[in-house]
Amino acid sequence: MTLSQLDAVTLLDLQSPVSSRLARVELELRRLIEDDFPLISEVNQHLLRMRGKMFRPTLALLADEATGGPSPHGETLAAVIELIHLATLVHDDAVDHSALRRGMPTINAKYSHQVSVIMGDFLYSRAVVELSRLGDSRALAVLARVTNAMTVGEMRQLLAHDPLAFTEEQYDLLIKAKTASLMSGACEVGGLTAPTAEREALARFGEKLGMAFQIVDDLLDYTEDAATTGKPSGLDLREHKVTLPLIHAIPQLGAEERGQLQRLMDNPEPTQAEITAVVAAVRRHGGLDYARTRAQGLMAEADADLGSLRPSPARELLRASLGFVLERRH
Amino acid sequence: MTLSQLDAVTLLDLQSPVSSRLARVELELRRLIEDDFPLISEVNQHLLRMRGKMFRPTLALLADEATGGPSPHGETLAAVIELIHLATLVHDDAVDHSALRRGMPTINAKYSHQVSVIMGDFLYSRAVVELSRLGDSRALAVLARVTNAMTVGEMRQLLAHDPLAFTEEQYDLLIKAKTASLMSGACEVGGLTAPTAEREALARFGEKLGMAFQIVDDLLDYTEDAATTGKPSGLDLREHKVTLPLIHAIPQLGAEERGQLQRLMDNPEPTQAEITAVVAAVRRHGGLDYARTRAQGLMAEADADLGSLRPSPARELLRASLGFVLERRH
Repeated sequence: MTLSQLDAVTLLDLQSPVSSRLARVELELRRLIEDDFPLISEVNQHLLRMRGKMFRPTLALLADEATGGPSPHGETLAAVIELIHLATLVHDDAVDHSALRRGMPTINAKYSHQVSVIMGDFLYSRAVVELSRLGDSRALAVLARVTNAMTVGEMRQLLAHDPLAFTEEQYDLLIKAKTASLMSGACEVGGLTAPTAEREALARFGEKLGMAFQIVDDLLDYTEDAATTGKPSGLDLREHKVTLPLIHAIPQLGAEERGQLQRLMDNPEPTQAEITAVVAAVRRHGGLDYARTRAQGLMAEADADLGSLRPSPARELLRASLGFVLERRH
Repeated sequence: MTLSQLDAVTLLDLQSPVSSRLARVELELRRLIEDDFPLISEVNQHLLRMRGKMFRPTLALLADEATGGPSPHGETLAAVIELIHLATLVHDDAVDHSALRRGMPTINAKYSHQVSVIMGDFLYSRAVVELSRLGDSRALAVLARVTNAMTVGEMRQLLAHDPLAFTEEQYDLLIKAKTASLMSGACEVGGLTAPTAEREALARFGEKLGMAFQIVDDLLDYTEDAATTGKPSGLDLREHKVTLPLIHAIPQLGAEERGQLQRLMDNPEPTQAEITAVVAAVRRHGGLDYARTRAQGLMAEADADLGSLRPSPARELLRASLGFVLERRH
């Protein structure tokens, strides 16, 4: 499969067919996080305003419908998945000391580091309370495993700041844990009632999709400016985060380019000039092309995984989600 | 019940009868947190060295034996409870920026704030993974609810820094959520196989015990020096934390004492002299006596709750644990 075989797809294309169910997911999410303690309630309002595009719940609903759904608790499980995502974002921002997310102040920035640690715990434990209430032991097993994997991914992320020590293999483990695990979990939970082969195919599909999602995200950091992404281009380099384009380019850097990279990594607050120089070197040595090719390869594998499912409109929407991921925000 | 009716009890007295089971709890705890990612494994070793006295697992095992145990998964559930406790300690230290716990550097101090946020998430999600693996839906329901309550307690703690706004009623809600909920959960999980009346009595017993435990802890901060507690006396005041002795004393403070309290609260780093003056005023106005009397009252209620259980050596050990809590570290 090449890029040209995937039509550009908007999120709206994927979400329209399940829009009424997504509206119920949003109501469920509100119910799950509701609390009468004033500070929690206030933070919840802020979180609901900054919430994302509900991509993971969309995957869960499509996987559900591609395997005989809608299931009775499909929307609630999709809301739990979004809630887990929300909890990890709150803690990720606390860990990274991020000030902005989706153009809005993060919880640590608007309230405090303390509030963000506690709120992440609040949200995650609410997800577990709901999984307990649903009594769906298979969904619990998948999502408990996935959440634990994400924490290991966050730990790997801490070590992803040494460009010479961080390999492509370690990058793959990082993005599997950090991003792909929950997307895989969303697809698997959506397909829990399906025969094992279909459920496993959905889990694999979600993992490849999630890895490609993160590679594209890391690519965007090299190619997009602040106006498009809502965050400054080169932010990863600014924070000394090593991602796939750089990993690929490093062995091919000349002495001068290597010196530029070293200076950026040695500078606690890299200048725009240092960032621009390293971005240019990475581009020159094919780091962006390589990352894009890898994302496309993962997409092709994910596409093949869908072959295990019976044909359905929902299956084709899952296929279309590959196009959305590859082309999003370009 | 008065203080004199409770014999001084050591933790060893409580733990000896279940020592072989507690040894298995420790092995289970090691199994639950084990991970091959080097940084996680290293932090785990540190956590195991700083681990506490296993009071909550002891309660769970005694409750188990007082209601017809030992149950097959009793040790594993007790280890999960200690694991949840460990996770909350790691995040509490991150939230409070504490440098020491039990005389050892905290995870945030020894590693980083980032590592402590991630490790707390790692430990808690491991607890959920194990509860999922055990398939014990009732234990999951209790511990999910309790963990969520603890996060609300942590949020209440953030607001416990305004001596004029923080009432005894709010203090009670705080200590119920922060401390009593997990002790109650430990007792309830230990008695899950018992008839409802006994299970509920154990939950109530654990809540009263836990509230008294926290009141005694807060008292110790006013009465003990660093050598005994392993942390500086007056630490709560130093951090502007308002606890029961102060709440009781405030309405009775004279103008000069009120001024002393205000200066302490206005000073980001209170001096030892400021702390000593407020401690003396609290003592003068009966704040310590009042807190001790409340702890004793809760103990009497907890003692009465045990009347719902059939007589057994384990029930008498639960009763003896009240004496341990009231007299510990004196």
